[in-house]
Amino acid sequence: MSEERIYTAAVVVIGNEILSGRTQDRNVAFLGRRLAEQGVRLQEVRIVRDTFEAIGNAVNALRADYDYVFTTGGIGPTHDDITSEAVARAFGVAFGRNPEAEAILRAYYRPEDATEARLGMADTPVGAILIDNPVSRAPGFRMENVYVLPGVPDILQAMFENLAGSLAGGRPVVSSSIAANLPEGALAGPLGAIQAANPEVEIGSYPFFRGGRLGASLVVRGADGDAVRAATGAVRAMIVALGGTPVEE
Amino acid sequence: MSEERIYTAAVVVIGNEILSGRTQDRNVAFLGRRLAEQGVRLQEVRIVRDTFEAIGNAVNALRADYDYVFTTGGIGPTHDDITSEAVARAFGVAFGRNPEAEAILRAYYRPEDATEARLGMADTPVGAILIDNPVSRAPGFRMENVYVLPGVPDILQAMFENLAGSLAGGRPVVSSSIAANLPEGALAGPLGAIQAANPEVEIGSYPFFRGGRLGASLVVRGADGDAVRAATGAVRAMIVALGGTPVEE
Repeated sequence: MSEERIYTAAVVVIGNEILSGRTQDRNVAFLGRRLAEQGVRLQEVRIVRDTFEAIGNAVNALRADYDYVFTTGGIGPTHDDITSEAVARAFGVAFGRNPEAEAILRAYYRPEDATEARLGMADTPVGAILIDNPVSRAPGFRMENVYVLPGVPDILQAMFENLAGSLAGGRPVVSSSIAANLPEGALAGPLGAIQAANPEVEIGSYPFFRGGRLGASLVVRGADGDAVRAATGAVRAMIVALGGTPVEE
Repeated sequence: MSEERIYTAAVVVIGNEILSGRTQDRNVAFLGRRLAEQGVRLQEVRIVRDTFEAIGNAVNALRADYDYVFTTGGIGPTHDDITSEAVARAFGVAFGRNPEAEAILRAYYRPEDATEARLGMADTPVGAILIDNPVSRAPGFRMENVYVLPGVPDILQAMFENLAGSLAGGRPVVSSSIAANLPEGALAGPLGAIQAANPEVEIGSYPFFRGGRLGASLVVRGADGDAVRAATGAVRAMIVALGGTPVEE
């Protein structure tokens, strides 16, 4: 296999409502899946409170460690939307009205609806590059390798699809998943041997508990499709040899 | 209001399958909600890869900053289950067979099923205190303020309910949630004024997009039930004054 650059990403989820358990996050799974399709591996997620300190610490730690950082949430017009200013502070740059963003909002709202609270969504760190919002217009932005996106899943997804083509990535990650109707304890020994014999792929075992019975999803992932297929064949044969029934997922 | 200790918690989710987007995490929302009911506030979550470095760094950073740390995932019998050993390394203690855990597993499995892989689930950091697993027996454990739990939601929930009564907490967090059929931009000004007038509660605004229309859930949270009720009344009156219809959630 040729030496190849691995592209990595992290996500910062800003949201007290996720931490309180009130809202089920759906953005991490979406971003993880869509990034992998573009050859970018999501390596870490932090879910933090909406304070300047918590957001700033997470953004600064992660932007140094990964190729891309995506933040979700906290860019609306209300008092608890402090992500944009927190990112400005994290970068040590001024925070103020972005004329391009203001023009977008003024073109969208009727004059009487262009309140100061709404125009506040046009405040960005100095130097920010806007990210188009095809749904509700209020833009996100990029500062270096940090992409600031909203928390509403439908809007985040539309904005991500807009910018997805512009992200540099490596080879897309290929994966296969096979469910085994056998407990992990029965699979563990031979599965470990398959992993050892196939170091170029990553084999994960994810137990489940359905209808009172333990089983496991065995997931093979890697950038080399042939290697993934070979290891998947070995996993399938192992399940049969153990008396189970492999089911593609 | 009397001075009162605020109890805090963090969660470390160990799981490449969550980061790849293959699996939707459900444990964070459960833990956030159940901890809040016991007066413990979930303040931060990190989702990390299953490497010794990633798990160890997260556990050590968070156990210093919060009263409780819960880890989820990576304690099964397969080659990718390295959480227990990673926690031992994070604490700088030896990792080995826990006789009490081994006895639990040997009592549960038929002798021919007590494989080395399964008995490996009885390996813990030295000094660990076991957490009972009423579903599939393989125990979790506690090291100081770090609680090591499995990733399968049904099993995690059963184990958490077993230990929940033993966690010290402050006053439970009381919350109310009202949906407004108004965009955040219309709510932002008066809502900010209500937050300013009610500093003892935390008011969050969480936009949603349903049926092509923007709305927002307004959530009031705090330890003082009277203060939460007063601020909630003000939020409800504000929605009506703006021409909207408040709906309890």
